[in-house]
Amino acid sequence: MVIVMRPGTNEAEINEVSKVLESLGLGVHISKGTERTIIGVIGDKRLLNDVPLELMTGVEKLVAIAEPYKLAGKTFKPESSVIDVGGVKIGGKEIVIMAGPCAVESRQQIIEAAHAVKKSGAQILRGGAYKPRTSPYAFQGLEEEGLKYLKEAKDETGLLIITEVTSERAVESAAEFVDIFQIGARNVQNFQLLKEVGRSKKPVLFKRGSSTTIDEWLNAAEYIMSEGNYNVILCERGIRTFETATRNTLDISAVPVLKSLSHLPVFVDPSHAAGKANYISSLSKAAIAAGADGLIIEVHPNPKCALSDAAQQLTPSVFDDLCKDISKIAEILGREFKYGG
Amino acid sequence: MVIVMRPGTNEAEINEVSKVLESLGLGVHISKGTERTIIGVIGDKRLLNDVPLELMTGVEKLVAIAEPYKLAGKTFKPESSVIDVGGVKIGGKEIVIMAGPCAVESRQQIIEAAHAVKKSGAQILRGGAYKPRTSPYAFQGLEEEGLKYLKEAKDETGLLIITEVTSERAVESAAEFVDIFQIGARNVQNFQLLKEVGRSKKPVLFKRGSSTTIDEWLNAAEYIMSEGNYNVILCERGIRTFETATRNTLDISAVPVLKSLSHLPVFVDPSHAAGKANYISSLSKAAIAAGADGLIIEVHPNPKCALSDAAQQLTPSVFDDLCKDISKIAEILGREFKYGG
Amino acid sequence: MVIVMRPGTNEAEINEVSKVLESLGLGVHISKGTERTIIGVIGDKRLLNDVPLELMTGVEKLVAIAEPYKLAGKTFKPESSVIDVGGVKIGGKEIVIMAGPCAVESRQQIIEAAHAVKKSGAQILRGGAYKPRTSPYAFQGLEEEGLKYLKEAKDETGLLIITEVTSERAVESAAEFVDIFQIGARNVQNFQLLKEVGRSKKPVLFKRGSSTTIDEWLNAAEYIMSEGNYNVILCERGIRTFETATRNTLDISAVPVLKSLSHLPVFVDPSHAAGKANYISSLSKAAIAAGADGLIIEVHPNPKCALSDAAQQLTPSVFDDLCKDISKIAEILGREFKYGG
Amino acid sequence: MVIVMRPGTNEAEINEVSKVLESLGLGVHISKGTERTIIGVIGDKRLLNDVPLELMTGVEKLVAIAEPYKLAGKTFKPESSVIDVGGVKIGGKEIVIMAGPCAVESRQQIIEAAHAVKKSGAQILRGGAYKPRTSPYAFQGLEEEGLKYLKEAKDETGLLIITEVTSERAVESAAEFVDIFQIGARNVQNFQLLKEVGRSKKPVLFKRGSSTTIDEWLNAAEYIMSEGNYNVILCERGIRTFETATRNTLDISAVPVLKSLSHLPVFVDPSHAAGKANYISSLSKAAIAAGADGLIIEVHPNPKCALSDAAQQLTPSVFDDLCKDISKIAEILGREFKYGG
Repeated sequence: MVIVMRPGTNEAEINEVSKVLESLGLGVHISKGTERTIIGVIGDKRLLNDVPLELMTGVEKLVAIAEPYKLAGKTFKPESSVIDVGGVKIGGKEIVIMAGPCAVESRQQIIEAAHAVKKSGAQILRGGAYKPRTSPYAFQGLEEEGLKYLKEAKDETGLLIITEVTSERAVESAAEFVDIFQIGARNVQNFQLLKEVGRSKKPVLFKRGSSTTIDEWLNAAEYIMSEGNYNVILCERGIRTFETATRNTLDISAVPVLKSLSHLPVFVDPSHAAGKANYISSLSKAAIAAGADGLIIEVHPNPKCALSDAAQQLTPSVFDDLCKDISKIAEILGREFKYGG
Repeated sequence: MVIVMRPGTNEAEINEVSKVLESLGLGVHISKGTERTIIGVIGDKRLLNDVPLELMTGVEKLVAIAEPYKLAGKTFKPESSVIDVGGVKIGGKEIVIMAGPCAVESRQQIIEAAHAVKKSGAQILRGGAYKPRTSPYAFQGLEEEGLKYLKEAKDETGLLIITEVTSERAVESAAEFVDIFQIGARNVQNFQLLKEVGRSKKPVLFKRGSSTTIDEWLNAAEYIMSEGNYNVILCERGIRTFETATRNTLDISAVPVLKSLSHLPVFVDPSHAAGKANYISSLSKAAIAAGADGLIIEVHPNPKCALSDAAQQLTPSVFDDLCKDISKIAEILGREFKYGG
Repeated sequence: MVIVMRPGTNEAEINEVSKVLESLGLGVHISKGTERTIIGVIGDKRLLNDVPLELMTGVEKLVAIAEPYKLAGKTFKPESSVIDVGGVKIGGKEIVIMAGPCAVESRQQIIEAAHAVKKSGAQILRGGAYKPRTSPYAFQGLEEEGLKYLKEAKDETGLLIITEVTSERAVESAAEFVDIFQIGARNVQNFQLLKEVGRSKKPVLFKRGSSTTIDEWLNAAEYIMSEGNYNVILCERGIRTFETATRNTLDISAVPVLKSLSHLPVFVDPSHAAGKANYISSLSKAAIAAGADGLIIEVHPNPKCALSDAAQQLTPSVFDDLCKDISKIAEILGREFKYGG
Repeated sequence: MVIVMRPGTNEAEINEVSKVLESLGLGVHISKGTERTIIGVIGDKRLLNDVPLELMTGVEKLVAIAEPYKLAGKTFKPESSVIDVGGVKIGGKEIVIMAGPCAVESRQQIIEAAHAVKKSGAQILRGGAYKPRTSPYAFQGLEEEGLKYLKEAKDETGLLIITEVTSERAVESAAEFVDIFQIGARNVQNFQLLKEVGRSKKPVLFKRGSSTTIDEWLNAAEYIMSEGNYNVILCERGIRTFETATRNTLDISAVPVLKSLSHLPVFVDPSHAAGKANYISSLSKAAIAAGADGLIIEVHPNPKCALSDAAQQLTPSVFDDLCKDISKIAEILGREFKYGG
């Protein structure tokens, strides 16, 4: 961290700041410019978390040099993390696709969806049992019943299961049914929930919030990881901008940015980014071409009858074409996706 | 709601859509333009929540005409709501100021702060016991101990108490100690938590999320209200934009916009919007001039020693000057604030 | 357009609005809902451009149904436009790459760059002669001298030339030297300049502004097209969001969105979006995978010596690798790019 | 400026960077941290404008410490600037209000408007002769004819005149008619136009662009000032965000931020920020309470007949009430506005 002093600061003020830093065991490096003096801080900046340096006389601003997150960063672990979930390796050479309906609506619907996505090569089945919806008057999910249907679909197809948890209280019971927890965009800074899934040790697909910077997102991942759960998969799903032609703006650059800052696997959710089925194939191919480790895509056996987010769910046939293309693009990039499973 | 059909849609497609609407008991009004046909939907649109009209053949888009929230809206209740909390009337003629430190740090600090803000006219004491922080390595609050100190400060000064709750599990125990719950920006769409405070019936100061539209915010308020708790105070606290000169961008227009859409009281939190103490007086006066019903402001007896958000807490003396100005501006606007209590 | 009336509007108010519409030769379609009446307007809405309907008594809001742009839209011309520039077909089967340094710095630099990018397959040479820079104290370009060097590079390599024009006054003289005009993001709503290039009939690569919606952008394109110049190439280059990890946020979804709304060719500029060389290859591949017709990329023979935007220019060798990958991805998508020219 | 080196950089790389800095006459200050070395640069950073430091081996990033603008900043001129335009002092104790219709529509309309706004205390008449409109099919202004009508209104009422210029070519002819040039949001980085008004020496009301940071805006002001024209009035008019309840989001914090960074007068345009007449009084009062030096407000003798932006123009009677309130708020803040002129 660098402390920038105001123009015209005097020696006494600079000494005062230095003393505080030294009292915490931090090193101090003073550099006098033509207009301003800056003070470099040497050592673990977490010691400064509770010290209001910006209020000391003469201090103009603090400039962070290193990132505040540790466990999620490349400095901590330079090589890419590969997360093994029941034999499926996430973050390795293989592209992993999680697919299925937005919400679990019935036993038949989820089992039908499971067969359909498996046929095209998806390794993991998604389906929401607890649906956070903008309006309380919209369908909120089948809850525990939905979890059971997911489990049945798993037993029948051998696919792994991912589902969203939205409540601290639901983590324990959901853990019995699912292989991967999903934390949704609205809960990206629900720190109680993050700590809860951190304690569970199950892999977590951790979606970016719609207005979360990459830096804040990695800090939030730290809440999960600092509880001892390092199995975190980052998932870009679009950010909120002024553009309204799509539901969110897919921040495709997040893929290479995360790859340069963190060792964690990076996924993309084109469905929530686009909000419209006819843009999803384009965005999926773009995500893989940009270097993503996998995708989570909404596929519904019969989108016209879907109970939530109908507009953004693919038909099994469109999904199948997409998987074909992805397997070819993966190959060009030195990766692999087994179309047809 | 209006359903816009694609150019070139045929009669059969239009009939198909009409049939679906009529089967739900909704009225249908077809209007053929030069390029497009549009279908007006008449009746309660909540019947359509789970019907994927946008996927029907020929449908281009849906255009909402009325707002989806009900209880929070002016159509439901045209006159302004006044919430009585232990005799303090929020949303009435009187301007209400909630003030106190960002976090409760010790018994002495919070009691000292309580005396200071009361002296200038604040009616309610704020202080965080559970602190959601971007990094897990920063100070997270005194938790239950903090609640007890708040209660002591209340007993000693007679001020009412507001504090943030961040976990469903903490709602019940916090309810014993505090007069008003605060829901913070990060939890604006933590629907489990909203329902929990909805069930408690205590007044809730409900902050806008940093990327929540006013429409989404009012829908989220609906989660609290639809559980039977109508005592919701909306609190604008800045939204996330590209500008970095301030921590957030205070959306001052939200004040008149909310006043035109909703009957709920509207507060402003200038401290989190600005993120810097020297902008807070300006923004506070602006908020009152714009028509806000009150403010929630961070005041610390000794900001230099604050354990969190030090840069944005006012000294009691600056706060006192601000209260003086506010009482004068209130008068011009036909309202009232008793400077000096 | 649909006119939404306030709840409780009376017959007389509705008639008043109808009369205004009919007096302009527009058709009227009234639809009474349970809460509100809406009025559908039938006919050419441009007749309403100067009529303040939103101020008439009883009118709550106007809702646009059709887009205001005409010439740029698919309704006007459903099939994709292919623009032939000296034999290079933009918007057809072939992927077109425009490459070269951010700024023309010297005769030698631009000729060297031209040879380098041609070798990898680029069909068009880019290079700025007039550089709009955030600060007036930064390098502003070689101006006319730069145009001459570009022309020399063209004569020597056979590459076509694109350069940015920033001033109405420079359009005429630049037209002698260049094959394609570039309009930069800062000038996306500099309507005088747009009309000027509209009158010149030369192809125009028209960049999106950093805060321009797709709808506004297509309307701005209309300024060029309504002067008779239909040779417009749209170029997405990143929008401004709260995220600061990249210079701008590349709106990759703009590619499929534009393809669904407009017949004009769509390019992507990954260099200005990313602002950092090491993200450009990822974004370039993503753009082609998403369906873009081409790219404009900054390549500098020696980025370390570049006089502007050094951090975002590729070396010829990285560019060459990228072109190789693009030719393979193009093939998978049923398109073509001749790596190695 | 501080240069942050990557973790693991070696001595040779650090020396290389130091040598480049020293060769330019800049001082160097090296500070070795536990993870990274940082290099402080001492002296005029403008010497570095064309040096691509971020590409040198080992360099991770550059961190700006001081602002790049000079003439607009407080370091250059600590005391507030007061601009005298024909006796009206802008930026002094007196609040200045510029008011009038969005567009000049006829001789009668502008003269009527002039009398109306003068009666309430406005010192300056606004009215657009050249109207930049999103769509080329909308009313574009009366151009030169409009300027003449403005001049007549000035002769008849004694009000000063402000109008927008949108083209370099129009600056010279407009200079004969108007007292203050307005540069609109769309042209905030039309640097040719800024230089042109910079050369004219007439006062310039310089609006912020809808996605311009305060830092970029002050840099753009530098384009005007570096041509010798120091008579720049900054005008906040709303920025583009995700919120659509208002046309733009008025960044009220820009008022205290600009007051702390710059000596230039600060105005607010509530009309373009809100886009709706019924929010304008709230925002105007807020702006003055926040410390603005003045307002520019759209007032139309008969808004229902306005040819552009009808929805956001006040009636003379609403404007009159607003001026009354402003004179009272001004007084509380130790300023002055003569209601009734």
